[in-house]
Amino acid sequence: MEEIKIFAPATVANLSCGFDVLGCCLESIGDEMLLRKNTTGEIRITKISGQELPMEADKNVAGVAVRALLKELNSQQGFDIEIYKKIKAGSGIGSSAASSAGAVFAVNKLLNEPFSPEELIPFAMEGERLASGNAHADNVAPALLGGFNLIRSYEPLEVIHLPTPQDLRMVILHPLIEVKTMDSRSIIRQSISLQKAVKQWGNLGAFVSALYSNDYDLLGRSLKDEIVEPVRSILIPFFDELKIIARESGALGFGISGSGPSVFAMCKGEASAKQTGAAIQKYYQEKEIDFDLHLSKIGNEGVKIIS
Amino acid sequence: MEEIKIFAPATVANLSCGFDVLGCCLESIGDEMLLRKNTTGEIRITKISGQELPMEADKNVAGVAVRALLKELNSQQGFDIEIYKKIKAGSGIGSSAASSAGAVFAVNKLLNEPFSPEELIPFAMEGERLASGNAHADNVAPALLGGFNLIRSYEPLEVIHLPTPQDLRMVILHPLIEVKTMDSRSIIRQSISLQKAVKQWGNLGAFVSALYSNDYDLLGRSLKDEIVEPVRSILIPFFDELKIIARESGALGFGISGSGPSVFAMCKGEASAKQTGAAIQKYYQEKEIDFDLHLSKIGNEGVKIIS
Repeated sequence: MEEIKIFAPATVANLSCGFDVLGCCLESIGDEMLLRKNTTGEIRITKISGQELPMEADKNVAGVAVRALLKELNSQQGFDIEIYKKIKAGSGIGSSAASSAGAVFAVNKLLNEPFSPEELIPFAMEGERLASGNAHADNVAPALLGGFNLIRSYEPLEVIHLPTPQDLRMVILHPLIEVKTMDSRSIIRQSISLQKAVKQWGNLGAFVSALYSNDYDLLGRSLKDEIVEPVRSILIPFFDELKIIARESGALGFGISGSGPSVFAMCKGEASAKQTGAAIQKYYQEKEIDFDLHLSKIGNEGVKIIS
Repeated sequence: MEEIKIFAPATVANLSCGFDVLGCCLESIGDEMLLRKNTTGEIRITKISGQELPMEADKNVAGVAVRALLKELNSQQGFDIEIYKKIKAGSGIGSSAASSAGAVFAVNKLLNEPFSPEELIPFAMEGERLASGNAHADNVAPALLGGFNLIRSYEPLEVIHLPTPQDLRMVILHPLIEVKTMDSRSIIRQSISLQKAVKQWGNLGAFVSALYSNDYDLLGRSLKDEIVEPVRSILIPFFDELKIIARESGALGFGISGSGPSVFAMCKGEASAKQTGAAIQKYYQEKEIDFDLHLSKIGNEGVKIIS
């Protein structure tokens, strides 16, 4: 195989009670990428559409991730990378993770899979390090593995793949304002109350239980975050109002996607997702805030081959 | 039914990463209690053996828990309570919880079960409030429901019953020193680092996942606590040494039971539990520290009727 075209999915990290450890993959939102072996021995970003991003491989997350993979193999193989961005950079649904994960997935396929999907995660994390200064895994792991993923530990890296209740739907609202991941991290307090932390881990334990037991109501009750959300939500226009509207429309839970500004509503079933999406969209229209709105299933596959 | 004899199990709360939210029931360690209706309309503690505890109903956790239950029912029924303690008070394996949970379980049976086991939890919690100043549920819930229990929330109270991998065994080592729960709570810092908290909830999420997936190794890897254990373990003689010995003997994990001084080793299978028990016992014998040692399965039933 000389060439491969793939779909690289968007992802939602920092899922409320799962700050820094829990993310999920979206099925119908993502970029496309085309990767082709070349004979120059170089990694070249040959095309980017949909967005202005660095064409220099060392400054592009896809280039950096691929370089990390090839370095591990001591490979001199060159690749041309074309990136067709659909996910907006800085939207909070794993734009950089999609590019990093997509690139290493594709290169791995073109090299006859020297690595398992799990083993690709650390390479994709190098792209995240370039994008945000922090080699986090809670976007790239679900982008590569699909479904819900829990990062139990970074040293050593251990990612746990969790089950997905089949009726789950995600509504993503992206207010068209810019929040840099680094800014968004810097406002988080580095010291928290034990009492709130105990609530958070109680909720995360319950969320994991609910994924296994298909308990949608429990998923909703445990999607809470009294630690990071109260601080970060001030950067998102009308966050509190949107949350109330989503809940009143029947959403199970509502929170910040990644480090924002996108927000997510988790819903049971297509009808509930549509109703919730319509309600929060109407509110933003009335407030005259520009936005993108997406509805998606949870993507069980992660990166997919298109051709 | 005028009279009932029950077995009220010991429990392990504060299971490492599950500080304040996770507890489990022990099958073969526990008290016996005999409860009998009387015609005086009074709650009387008529016998206590095995330990010196208040005979006055208002100062005894069993009396207080039963009173809370009867108050909810507006019942004037009187009861005589006999308590045959096997669990030592202050040992850290839920001595007061066993008495509280056993008493309300028995009274509920004698009154033809006006309450479900879950509904009994708040009454038993009143016993805990008397014992430790804090109406916590992570001992009484597993004592009443059996197995592993996660306290997701206190307001409102929500307890999640988790599955039990069948080969799990608990080794309990009780150093015969006294640590009051209140003292043990007061040394915990009320403010913690976000970084450690994130590790803790990652581990708790993983522990819950491991219970569902019967992944014993993952249970072991996630039984960690960098927040409370480092502070409380200084009250327990040779804690760090015991932990190393338990791990080297094949235990999955090792930690403090409740607020100590008992410690637990979680093991896969009877042989591993015996080996671990023998190794930590030998160490304490060499150090000339008095102790009790228990081996137990996880109790899937909670309080049981003897006759």
